[in-house]
Amino acid sequence: MSEETGAPSERTTLKRGANRAVYASDDVKAVLDAGYVAHVGVSTAQGIIVLPMAYGRTEDTLYLHGSAANAMLRAGSDTDICVTVTLVDGLVVARSAFHNSMNYRSVVVRGHARKVTEDVEILDALKIITDHVADNWDSRREATDKELKATLVIALPLTEASAKIRDGGPVDDEADLGGPEWAGVIPLTESWGEPIPIDDLVEGTPVPQPLLDLQD
Amino acid sequence: MSEETGAPSERTTLKRGANRAVYASDDVKAVLDAGYVAHVGVSTAQGIIVLPMAYGRTEDTLYLHGSAANAMLRAGSDTDICVTVTLVDGLVVARSAFHNSMNYRSVVVRGHARKVTEDVEILDALKIITDHVADNWDSRREATDKELKATLVIALPLTEASAKIRDGGPVDDEADLGGPEWAGVIPLTESWGEPIPIDDLVEGTPVPQPLLDLQD
Repeated sequence: MSEETGAPSERTTLKRGANRAVYASDDVKAVLDAGYVAHVGVSTAQGIIVLPMAYGRTEDTLYLHGSAANAMLRAGSDTDICVTVTLVDGLVVARSAFHNSMNYRSVVVRGHARKVTEDVEILDALKIITDHVADNWDSRREATDKELKATLVIALPLTEASAKIRDGGPVDDEADLGGPEWAGVIPLTESWGEPIPIDDLVEGTPVPQPLLDLQD
Repeated sequence: MSEETGAPSERTTLKRGANRAVYASDDVKAVLDAGYVAHVGVSTAQGIIVLPMAYGRTEDTLYLHGSAANAMLRAGSDTDICVTVTLVDGLVVARSAFHNSMNYRSVVVRGHARKVTEDVEILDALKIITDHVADNWDSRREATDKELKATLVIALPLTEASAKIRDGGPVDDEADLGGPEWAGVIPLTESWGEPIPIDDLVEGTPVPQPLLDLQD
């Protein structure tokens, strides 16, 4: 009903700082690909802060970008962070509220954040983040040097990433099975609507196909 | 286009530890009520961890509960935490990828987590958390003492809570307005499906009305 995959949860067993890329598991990649926003936790002089940020991934690296990133990394350009992506798939209603739950898919990535400084990697990362939800980097106007310089991109290795997925019905105590209460699951789904063009759109400008494809 | 409400973001200006309840702003309450899962960040001996947890709220308190809670609070029963709830409402596509964004509603609550120890408050909090998505506490079988003792509930004051909401279209540089690229918003919506009963349901058991009402 609930399974965990990827790196071991006992963090101390991991060789931190070992310079070896570990490809993320299929579950980790699938959940990251399905999500839209990452919740990024970082320790600051004012305490822990968790903020939503846009993201994208390669086979071994998670890239983050957001207006919040700058403030979050003010404490230093390299910091330990935790990045969590969660999709809620349903409300699980058991006979006992104690066993109520959610169906969900979640990935937790922990590690040492690296500020991306090379122009080539910044450009690559921005394309990856922009194309994460739907490919649209190629249909935008070309990025300027000024924009690239104003952009903070953070890289996090997917070495220490694990996925947790819960699905299926409620798991009640044996004594409650067949009881008089209703029990089951209310599924939750997300759907993309029709693109809404901006007011000053040049008449006849087509919506890029990947943005239309979101509705499938 | 983007607005922030609630407590000031300059955390150090807040009187921490002041024993005075501050009611959360309407925006904070509305976003908390609309969300399903909170991302809870806490500092542990093994570093920062951010985990998804179920939650509920009163006028001045956020209650958290989850199987993960125990491990997260192992470092001590009272800890500074950060709780963030985010709803994604759309993909904002600008002429320049640099100005791409998301429409979203987000609440960040920071503060000192308190382990709830009184039976009466634990029971109240569990009802609040259980009823957060849809009222169903009253249609479950009564909680046992054993269940209450096995439950870890955390309370966080809503004193230091702020909401951030972005909506509307992309905000491009003036030079890009009227450009040849498509620009606009792809809205994202969530919807609850039809309740799926568990296999051993007694025939004819009705679905509680609040669970049916989710589909409205």
